[in-house]
Amino acid sequence: MTPGKSPRRLADEVAASGPAPRLAAAAALLEMGDRLGVFDVILPGKEFTVAELATATELPEQGITGYLEALESAGIIQHATVAGDSFVTADDFEELQHQAGYISWTMNANRPFIENARAYLTDQSLPTGAYTRDGRQVAVSSQWMGSLAYYPAAVETIIEARPKRVADLGAGTCRLLIEILQAFPDTTGVGLDLDGPSCAAARVAAEQEGVGDRLTVVERSIQSVADDATPLEGADVISAGFVFHDMMPDEEHIADKVLANCRDALRPGGIMAITDAVPYLRNERERAFSAAVTYYHRQFMKRKLLTEQEWEAKLLGAGFSSVKTVELGFPTGRLFIAHR
Amino acid sequence: MTPGKSPRRLADEVAASGPAPRLAAAAALLEMGDRLGVFDVILPGKEFTVAELATATELPEQGITGYLEALESAGIIQHATVAGDSFVTADDFEELQHQAGYISWTMNANRPFIENARAYLTDQSLPTGAYTRDGRQVAVSSQWMGSLAYYPAAVETIIEARPKRVADLGAGTCRLLIEILQAFPDTTGVGLDLDGPSCAAARVAAEQEGVGDRLTVVERSIQSVADDATPLEGADVISAGFVFHDMMPDEEHIADKVLANCRDALRPGGIMAITDAVPYLRNERERAFSAAVTYYHRQFMKRKLLTEQEWEAKLLGAGFSSVKTVELGFPTGRLFIAHR
Repeated sequence: MTPGKSPRRLADEVAASGPAPRLAAAAALLEMGDRLGVFDVILPGKEFTVAELATATELPEQGITGYLEALESAGIIQHATVAGDSFVTADDFEELQHQAGYISWTMNANRPFIENARAYLTDQSLPTGAYTRDGRQVAVSSQWMGSLAYYPAAVETIIEARPKRVADLGAGTCRLLIEILQAFPDTTGVGLDLDGPSCAAARVAAEQEGVGDRLTVVERSIQSVADDATPLEGADVISAGFVFHDMMPDEEHIADKVLANCRDALRPGGIMAITDAVPYLRNERERAFSAAVTYYHRQFMKRKLLTEQEWEAKLLGAGFSSVKTVELGFPTGRLFIAHR
Repeated sequence: MTPGKSPRRLADEVAASGPAPRLAAAAALLEMGDRLGVFDVILPGKEFTVAELATATELPEQGITGYLEALESAGIIQHATVAGDSFVTADDFEELQHQAGYISWTMNANRPFIENARAYLTDQSLPTGAYTRDGRQVAVSSQWMGSLAYYPAAVETIIEARPKRVADLGAGTCRLLIEILQAFPDTTGVGLDLDGPSCAAARVAAEQEGVGDRLTVVERSIQSVADDATPLEGADVISAGFVFHDMMPDEEHIADKVLANCRDALRPGGIMAITDAVPYLRNERERAFSAAVTYYHRQFMKRKLLTEQEWEAKLLGAGFSSVKTVELGFPTGRLFIAHR
């Protein structure tokens, strides 16, 4: 049977279908995989089977078979061999997961803002936490977004500095620090985070990755550095990814003190590497995503994002001698490298 | 200040940021607009102001101002003039809304399936309605998806047939029929739908659009045509968009009877125009979205999608003399044109 296509119309419509259907499908199927718990087993470059996944996820093989059928037909995974029952991820799996991260963060992690937009716009004083986001969904989608778009730039900057001692503010599970300590066998690190479970997970991960004796995890807020910067003393690099904007505008004076103390805690020649979002960019590549990020932060989270100029002034004001601003793949993200 | 870009790295990362951030941002901001109720005023080709939107949505001007600032910065709307306070939609507004439809349908309208995937895969017998989708969100996102991708093909096919009488099964608010009746001033139409509020809205719309005297709206199920096809008698075209798969597999024998009765109700030379989704296509353009659509229907809605071959056999089996299959811009969608 030959489909009776009208070439003109089909060409128009196919053009109109664009990239969204594929990206939306990938995001949905990957998010579903996150809920099913498959991504401890489905890893780039590693073969896996239905039986293995059923065991790892404690789900029936029938259910896993249907899910993998969908992933395979979508082109997200492929059969490892023509005959066998193993699968591997498709060549562009990490890129798909990265793209899915943007969709998942914007459409799902921040969904309470979309659904409750009328309430927020009716009462401008509605407090930030009125409709709380799911922290896990924010974390997972942020990791997917960051994996190719801002994380590598921060890692590269730190590695170029060849630090003997490195600190991370808002370190989470210390993924960044562990990677740096593995690159430099004599380097020590310290991670600060307010979240107890993240700190516990970081200690476990550091042991597993063989850097447990060189990593100190401190359960403390970033704000506490305004009063006591002792853990950061003597660092060659202090990094901070998407954490400072959470202090703006209410705690901006504390943020200023934190930055000044970081500057003073650094060894001569040391750097501070801050990754953060800047507001309402206008260039074609970044403007749409920049608008969503800015609007979420201003209207719903009641946060102030600093412009490049404001960041540079703030860092110079904290005593740093110079600031270099790096554009990132992550739209609306910037890496600020401030020299002591 | 010149951003200190590393050209190699930036080029890589910018390439990696891809189309997802823009599409995700557009989808989120447009969905938010749907919740705010702005799309009775924000229409392509029409100027609008903050004051007008505040009145229409019953929201404070301050809130509307912030929302429009985000839309404008995202490039979704633009200032109508350099000086004035009016806005208009951007040139690609309809295309953006169309793309947003795919993301909204896949990621939001079907969200209960994503969130409850573990429960569905654990108990394969979990009934269809266990985690119910929001009908309004399905309808809105489907309309955005269909506006450029399957709706025009159905309209064009019906208009080419120059019908004197046209029927639509699962007519919803009779948008399709009203468009046809406006194109042919002597044509009459009949729309069947099970949903009372949709039928009521259809009658209101038909009056408003000046075709109320030529459109009959019948509140009935499609299944009822298996017992009584009287309303369809003498039609030149009977159309049905994405409604037959809802009868598969449990009511497939009823669907067969409906199709046979439609064939018999048509005037000589009449056609039936069915738009529906086909399962698990493998071509690069359609495979990812096809997989998501198929998996949602099979695993979660417990529906059977028919292949092109199965549709053609079914229509020939119902007494039609020939079937033409048309590929649509809507990935995994096909238009089947069956001649009496």
